Amino acid sequence: MPGYKAPLDDIRFLLHDVFKLEEFCAEFPAFEDVDTDTVNAILEEAAKLCEQVLAPIDASGDTDGAKRVDGGVQAASGFAQAYKAFSEGAWGALGGDPEYGGMGMPKTLVSAVEEMVQGSNMAFGLAPMLTAGACLAIQAHGSDQLKQLYLPKMYSGEWTGAMDLTEAHAGTDLGLMRTKAVPNGDGSYEISGTKIFITWGEHDMTENIVHLVLAKLPDAPKGSRGISLFLVPKFLPGDASELGERNNVHCGSIEHKMGIHGSPTCVMNFDGAKGWLIGEPNQGLACMFTMMNYERLVVGIQGIGVAESSYQTARDYALDRLQGRAPQGPLNPEQIADPIIVHPDVRRMLMEMKALNEASRAFYFYVARWLDTAKYAEDEGQRKIAGERVALLTPVAKSFMTDRALEVCVTGQQVLGGHGYIAEWGQDQKVRDVRITQIYEGTNGVQAMDLIGRKTVAAKGALMSSYIAEMREDLALAKDAGIDQSIADRFAEVVQCLEATTQFIVESSEPELSGAVAVDYLDMTGYVAFAHMWIMMLNVCTGQIASRVGIQGGKLSTANFYFAKVLPTISALEAKIKAGAASILSLESTQF
Amino acid sequence: MPGYKAPLDDIRFLLHDVFKLEEFCAEFPAFEDVDTDTVNAILEEAAKLCEQVLAPIDASGDTDGAKRVDGGVQAASGFAQAYKAFSEGAWGALGGDPEYGGMGMPKTLVSAVEEMVQGSNMAFGLAPMLTAGACLAIQAHGSDQLKQLYLPKMYSGEWTGAMDLTEAHAGTDLGLMRTKAVPNGDGSYEISGTKIFITWGEHDMTENIVHLVLAKLPDAPKGSRGISLFLVPKFLPGDASELGERNNVHCGSIEHKMGIHGSPTCVMNFDGAKGWLIGEPNQGLACMFTMMNYERLVVGIQGIGVAESSYQTARDYALDRLQGRAPQGPLNPEQIADPIIVHPDVRRMLMEMKALNEASRAFYFYVARWLDTAKYAEDEGQRKIAGERVALLTPVAKSFMTDRALEVCVTGQQVLGGHGYIAEWGQDQKVRDVRITQIYEGTNGVQAMDLIGRKTVAAKGALMSSYIAEMREDLALAKDAGIDQSIADRFAEVVQCLEATTQFIVESSEPELSGAVAVDYLDMTGYVAFAHMWIMMLNVCTGQIASRVGIQGGKLSTANFYFAKVLPTISALEAKIKAGAASILSLESTQF
Repeated sequence: MPGYKAPLDDIRFLLHDVFKLEEFCAEFPAFEDVDTDTVNAILEEAAKLCEQVLAPIDASGDTDGAKRVDGGVQAASGFAQAYKAFSEGAWGALGGDPEYGGMGMPKTLVSAVEEMVQGSNMAFGLAPMLTAGACLAIQAHGSDQLKQLYLPKMYSGEWTGAMDLTEAHAGTDLGLMRTKAVPNGDGSYEISGTKIFITWGEHDMTENIVHLVLAKLPDAPKGSRGISLFLVPKFLPGDASELGERNNVHCGSIEHKMGIHGSPTCVMNFDGAKGWLIGEPNQGLACMFTMMNYERLVVGIQGIGVAESSYQTARDYALDRLQGRAPQGPLNPEQIADPIIVHPDVRRMLMEMKALNEASRAFYFYVARWLDTAKYAEDEGQRKIAGERVALLTPVAKSFMTDRALEVCVTGQQVLGGHGYIAEWGQDQKVRDVRITQIYEGTNGVQAMDLIGRKTVAAKGALMSSYIAEMREDLALAKDAGIDQSIADRFAEVVQCLEATTQFIVESSEPELSGAVAVDYLDMTGYVAFAHMWIMMLNVCTGQIASRVGIQGGKLSTANFYFAKVLPTISALEAKIKAGAASILSLESTQF
Repeated sequence: MPGYKAPLDDIRFLLHDVFKLEEFCAEFPAFEDVDTDTVNAILEEAAKLCEQVLAPIDASGDTDGAKRVDGGVQAASGFAQAYKAFSEGAWGALGGDPEYGGMGMPKTLVSAVEEMVQGSNMAFGLAPMLTAGACLAIQAHGSDQLKQLYLPKMYSGEWTGAMDLTEAHAGTDLGLMRTKAVPNGDGSYEISGTKIFITWGEHDMTENIVHLVLAKLPDAPKGSRGISLFLVPKFLPGDASELGERNNVHCGSIEHKMGIHGSPTCVMNFDGAKGWLIGEPNQGLACMFTMMNYERLVVGIQGIGVAESSYQTARDYALDRLQGRAPQGPLNPEQIADPIIVHPDVRRMLMEMKALNEASRAFYFYVARWLDTAKYAEDEGQRKIAGERVALLTPVAKSFMTDRALEVCVTGQQVLGGHGYIAEWGQDQKVRDVRITQIYEGTNGVQAMDLIGRKTVAAKGALMSSYIAEMREDLALAKDAGIDQSIADRFAEVVQCLEATTQFIVESSEPELSGAVAVDYLDMTGYVAFAHMWIMMLNVCTGQIASRVGIQGGKLSTANFYFAKVLPTISALEAKIKAGAASILSLESTQF
């Protein structure tokens, strides 16, 4: 099984050449220390950790899995040591608040590290990902006391974080939840209830686990407006550096599931566990939303991370495996056969993987840059525009990146034929692991509803208009830079199609239309967004960069492939959307 | 986890109303005993076996898996008993040659049983599937002595069959194989070599296993024209009913793989094992082709079988699970929430599954009917036309049915959200099991190459023209029957598109075009073929059948959905094909 190689060349091209990270950081006082040397050092150190520490325990983590032992959970072999190495490298602090021990690096840079971590070992990557998410919520809404008590320990990797939202009967519909929080009178609360699907909810990698738990206060309003957020540690913090009392939160069982076996998915029982309110009462969902956009982007990043890894294995296999001959005759006459990469259909598969992965990588940097602007820009207007762009594109990043990632991983398995189906090459694990990204943090269908409902129809298309305007500006720049005319025309067409389709949806009087075409609309947005990324990449492929990246790195050819062979899907999506909701609704429930 | 229910209503509708099995059988002397009562009795008994015996051990077969024990292979718990029940029901004899103890039923009927067997337990279903395939090859090409010795025991289920083709370095490119066969001088041969990926190659369900092995005779021509087919039993048949000597064929190991854990995938070592030639020397591949079309259709049937099972679980879950409210307001105000089937996006997923599954089921009956005609028609011209239609559509049935099946199973998992990812509901197993159908018996890419190369370009489009002519005749019939005008127009359009695209490909001078667009062309053919099935179904949805199946069974609504929401994909495929090969070929191998 080939090893994972961090795609540093492409990451550097995107950070430095396309998204011009140094110029961007210079605009923000928070990032004044971020220079090219720092960035490159961080990327190279992260690559080392991922290639040498995390990737080698990816397959064994799948085979061994996290285990239920003595009422607790034992992490898969090697995971605890890897988490120690991760923490010693201060990787848990990378994006954290400097006031509490974080390094305060921009999300645009942190994202690159996240791709490498998730791509080399997604089951492992979930632990720091959930911890970072919990930190964000505590940092934004916790009291100063909670921040001082918890953030430094979580940034340092001494403690991990977990998000406890779902209950057996309350998944997407969180308003149905039953977990209760009763005030103790001393500022703390007693939490009781059972949560399911809690990722890294229990384990033995660190001495403590910090649960962020959604629960209902007594006399809370019904539904989702009556949910509050609580911090519930496994061990209460004690005096000085000692841990205090064991809290009444315990793991009831762990799930048997399709993949991410190295990551325990826990049922967590809260039996009068002690917790502290984060944010205002009944504002739990709003507090969660602070971190939601970050978390959802990381789920998309998990997709591209794993998809990149699948591509690497498929490419290596296609270059090595000898079967059959090239259509134009033997290319390797001295060998028994040619490598399978000579077959056009094998090349097609690799090109699809490459074209989608490279656009996907560009897209997360693009969204991350807007996240940074929304958080760190000094100008309020700039923050507002950025916040709206993030709101619009977060469901796209989460869903479109993960849907394409499954596609890529299935293709990466197909390239290997029967060898892709057996465990030996690791391609089957990638399909099984990446599949969850389409489901958790809000299913991709729910994301599509968010995009079309709240972000598009409710906003009367304004957020999409602003996005489309930006795409047209970038097209104008790329035309000035001399990109291929047929690509420019094709991009103008699909942007026009997205605009017209948005208008069609916003103006429709069919009440069920949004739900019925949500996924098609998200896909259309995603394919146009990826085309936009190719335009942005082509835009800088002039002069020296053109020969380094465009020609030798294959960017020009890959862009051509994307426009010729991937983008046509938009015409099908347009027709499906225009067909409306009627054919989806006409069957009675009893006829299914 | 809900149980599997055989889709008898739909099967009966297709067999009796659409494909008029009784009228069809009356045309063939071989099928003169096949009447409606026999057909219905067979279907009902098969349904019982599948629902009550095979389905209950599907999940446990996945969890336990076949195990390597004492140099042999132990079938998963309950599998041996189930195979006994299968055999006692004479299900292994259903399609067999009556001269050797078979029941001689038409493939059109056998296919329905195959769907139920594969849908209720695919890992189990592989054992009878491979046995039936081996029987076909022996029956068509074996000496009378071999037929008398082996067929009765294999039809009765006392012995199973296995196909030993692949070697570690010779998968798609069988010409590279190294397994040798040396004549013993007594009519038998000594077989030496190692085969991999041998499904049910070793197990303890039956007393004997009959391997059909591809190997090379001394001085055989190089490549695929030097391959011969041999019969190599695990135990040599002895006197009377006693088994003779143990043969030198042994299982070296079994694979760890993504799914079908109940089906052992074996490395088989032949160390001077005794075997007998089947067919002529160096004609091994031709002998294999006799059964290939049957086997490949059954792989497609595995797809729809598992996809149907996934649909049933998704539908039951969607009707039961309460989350959120319908877009038009609460439909279940007395409950905490509405069942998720009220959400248009959930209905969309179920409609996609239903529309694809029902067309897929119709399509295997359609192809099976042509298989029967090719084999049993008295008129040679009729046999020839049928043989050509089978040759054209076998790669479509194998690939398109299994590609859509993975799609359906992934969707069926998505409907359940997080519950689809954990093992409890069985939806994850279906994705893992069905995934292999896209790979084995020739990967779907290889099937697409076969369709576009040998079956289309080499035939100058003649086979496709004849198929298109039939589709137009069926459209004319359906128009006479009064089907919806817009559906008729749309079908005429896509048939026209397939015709024009075929012409474009046949006339192209671009040497790599075929390979580059093979999969897109196969998909286009598949979507049109499924549309044809909907036209054939709508054609009989008049009078009483219309109210029974069309309205109440939802056929009319589902057909509308297929034409409105699935078929538009063809426009994207057309554009991709027209874009040619250039963008696939421009990258150098080193640039991947």
